[in-house]
Amino acid sequence: MRGSLYRLMGGFTEFDDYVRARVPQYLDELKALIRQPTVSAQGIGIADTARIVLDRARRAGIDASARSVNGGPPTIVGETGRGERTLLVYNHYDVQPPDPLDEWETPPFEPTERDGHLFGRGVSDNKGNLMARLQAIEAYRATIGELPLRVRVLYEGEEESGSPHLAAFVDANADRLRADGCIWEAGYKDAAGRPTISCGLKGIAYVELRVRGAAKDAHSSVATIIPNPAWRLVWALATLKNDRDEITVDGFAQEVRQPTPAELGLLERLPFDETAMLRIHGISRFVGGLSGLALKRKHFYEPTCTICGIVSGYTGAGSKTVLPAIASAKIDFRLVPDLTPEKVATLLRAHLDRRGFSDVEIVPSHGERPSRWPTDSLPARAAAVACRATYGVDPVVYPLMAGSGPMAQVCDRLGIPVTGFGSGNAASANHAPNENIAIADYVDHIRAFGRFLDTFAGRPL
Amino acid sequence: MRGSLYRLMGGFTEFDDYVRARVPQYLDELKALIRQPTVSAQGIGIADTARIVLDRARRAGIDASARSVNGGPPTIVGETGRGERTLLVYNHYDVQPPDPLDEWETPPFEPTERDGHLFGRGVSDNKGNLMARLQAIEAYRATIGELPLRVRVLYEGEEESGSPHLAAFVDANADRLRADGCIWEAGYKDAAGRPTISCGLKGIAYVELRVRGAAKDAHSSVATIIPNPAWRLVWALATLKNDRDEITVDGFAQEVRQPTPAELGLLERLPFDETAMLRIHGISRFVGGLSGLALKRKHFYEPTCTICGIVSGYTGAGSKTVLPAIASAKIDFRLVPDLTPEKVATLLRAHLDRRGFSDVEIVPSHGERPSRWPTDSLPARAAAVACRATYGVDPVVYPLMAGSGPMAQVCDRLGIPVTGFGSGNAASANHAPNENIAIADYVDHIRAFGRFLDTFAGRPL
Repeated sequence: MRGSLYRLMGGFTEFDDYVRARVPQYLDELKALIRQPTVSAQGIGIADTARIVLDRARRAGIDASARSVNGGPPTIVGETGRGERTLLVYNHYDVQPPDPLDEWETPPFEPTERDGHLFGRGVSDNKGNLMARLQAIEAYRATIGELPLRVRVLYEGEEESGSPHLAAFVDANADRLRADGCIWEAGYKDAAGRPTISCGLKGIAYVELRVRGAAKDAHSSVATIIPNPAWRLVWALATLKNDRDEITVDGFAQEVRQPTPAELGLLERLPFDETAMLRIHGISRFVGGLSGLALKRKHFYEPTCTICGIVSGYTGAGSKTVLPAIASAKIDFRLVPDLTPEKVATLLRAHLDRRGFSDVEIVPSHGERPSRWPTDSLPARAAAVACRATYGVDPVVYPLMAGSGPMAQVCDRLGIPVTGFGSGNAASANHAPNENIAIADYVDHIRAFGRFLDTFAGRPL
Repeated sequence: MRGSLYRLMGGFTEFDDYVRARVPQYLDELKALIRQPTVSAQGIGIADTARIVLDRARRAGIDASARSVNGGPPTIVGETGRGERTLLVYNHYDVQPPDPLDEWETPPFEPTERDGHLFGRGVSDNKGNLMARLQAIEAYRATIGELPLRVRVLYEGEEESGSPHLAAFVDANADRLRADGCIWEAGYKDAAGRPTISCGLKGIAYVELRVRGAAKDAHSSVATIIPNPAWRLVWALATLKNDRDEITVDGFAQEVRQPTPAELGLLERLPFDETAMLRIHGISRFVGGLSGLALKRKHFYEPTCTICGIVSGYTGAGSKTVLPAIASAKIDFRLVPDLTPEKVATLLRAHLDRRGFSDVEIVPSHGERPSRWPTDSLPARAAAVACRATYGVDPVVYPLMAGSGPMAQVCDRLGIPVTGFGSGNAASANHAPNENIAIADYVDHIRAFGRFLDTFAGRPL
């Protein structure tokens, strides 16, 4: 009743006032969650964080439980509200390792407000959105009334390590997850400050390449005749991508599905602030000197092959004349349809073997298939309306985010169309030092998510 | 008189008896020198060690003094004996850092006897030979008589840090150093236990290559369009040497002086225990599957281009999807005539620029020119005769040692032919944990050096 009356009176004014009055309290809740380190790659803080998140979800009125499959970490599922439609909300409560620590202006696990922003590991990826959406549900109930739809949540604890147990979890808990649409973990204001929504993710194949030489490090004077694994690794890597940034793994390019004319048309009109991107990253030109449609097409519709890390031998100060015994590189391939992690592993092995690099071991780390959904699906349309009402401008609709996540494990597996929007910005520094969100963007995500509950349920704003 | 009589009676019997009777006392002297840490890279113990060495040289009858140029460390020069010929003895009193400490079975600066060997930092490189030669001079005088030649000594204190002041020191003290031949710091029994002498050293050019990308590490999803310095470094490195281990720096090969037919003839007859080398390094084949003359030729007469270290991005456990902002590699080039560190720097810069790698910064670390002297020079012939008389077998004569040192700064600068022999063995672990010499080899080096004083002076043994 109160809700209906409220909508008749012009919508979300009381909701917004309620949220704005509670910003310090909302931020304190988020800071407490940030202070709890949750580094899945290093097994740090997973169970403790799961308990905090489970408790928080229950306090938001969600009938939630923590479950796991096959010895995986606690995954939190739950449900609240009733209505014709069901929304699935996906977030993850784990974060990336904070390295390199000395590049943080304030410690990663001591959330700090500075210049209207909140800094800390996980504020953007992904604890901030997780918390904001729970706060939005509470604020909705407090100001508008019972939710007009059924909301299901799925909070996992190993997204930053490739979600190795999620597919099995989804299979085992499909009845708790089925929905008419899914809202994915995040979304970002672009470099020009425009809100964006996106309708897919690239996949990923993350592998480590390892080469062994002599039994132990040797004096470099014998490098004449004793094999050097660092050189073997460099030569092998140089066959994977050329200096025009073209991936040269045999058979790789043939698996790349080209964008349709319709998709290219949308892409052509998609705003992409090149000047701001250059400034944010402190560079003078993009890879290959690209710009315009060619730049956007490469970013959204092409795969990558990235050296995320490489190490061999002596890397300290000064010089040491050593012949290393071992070398390794961490490589991520970002995947577009129809590439899959399985195809990449097979192509890569065959490619290296064909060139005499059978000594280069491929250690798979994690993989995700790409996931691409229509930009006019139910959640995409509902998100666009909610964003317009919140920000006063139409959001930019991306075909996908260039990042990766377990979207295919959830949405493709269950056939749920999906969209993402959230509280990040173009300089949020996810996975990097000084990760941050603007506090105003955090508040706006609570406001937008409250509206989205209505638009997704089919109610007019 | 006594000396002449002694030689008539069959040579060095009394000398050998004298030395053997004093082995415990000789080792105690060496141990005292080892107990004094002298780590030039860290500025530890230089002045204290110089005082000990100066005092010891004086007690051996050498008119010695400690001098320095341009604020460099004390360098000890001195002279003793009279005769037609002058011998210059080069040693260094500094040692490598003892790291990694936890791999030493006994502490590096507590010299320890075990299984007939003496362990400690510097016993092989180079305090052992320095002390053995002083003891040989004393024993010669005590048993045979006055030295039949003039012996000059040059003991420097920063060899392990690239001898940055030595060239200027040699220029300023040339009159104290000129000689008819030089005996270099060291020599080693080979893997089969044969004594060896050598007549040169490779040079070295040690550089760091650095590439910068974005202002800071970024999420690897933007690797589509933001340059990756790790890839830039890999591509640049891959142009320096191909996977047949051929150095492909423009103009580099042309500077390599090919061995003469006479040198190749000597090389052909040079014993080189391939099986032992493979076993020591725990490998199944040498670079390129080489063996025999081709293997020896590559080892002794070809330069190297070695990745001693490379690092970029995330190198910890697990995976991190990061686009690195910086990448670097430490490279050492071992040089043969007519390559020099200056030529390498010039060729490398031009090579990289020509291929569009002007963004790859070259940071020089240190350099030494190569030094190669005839294997039939006066000191080489004298050393061969002295070794045969000591060990009962002909020594293996290496054209050079594949390592590097300031030989050109002394011998090429002053035009003094040079040879090295000493008390090391193939597993002496120079620059590594558990550095050692066999005590028998230490005694034999005193015996061989005593004989060398005669053979170099032109006396029959």
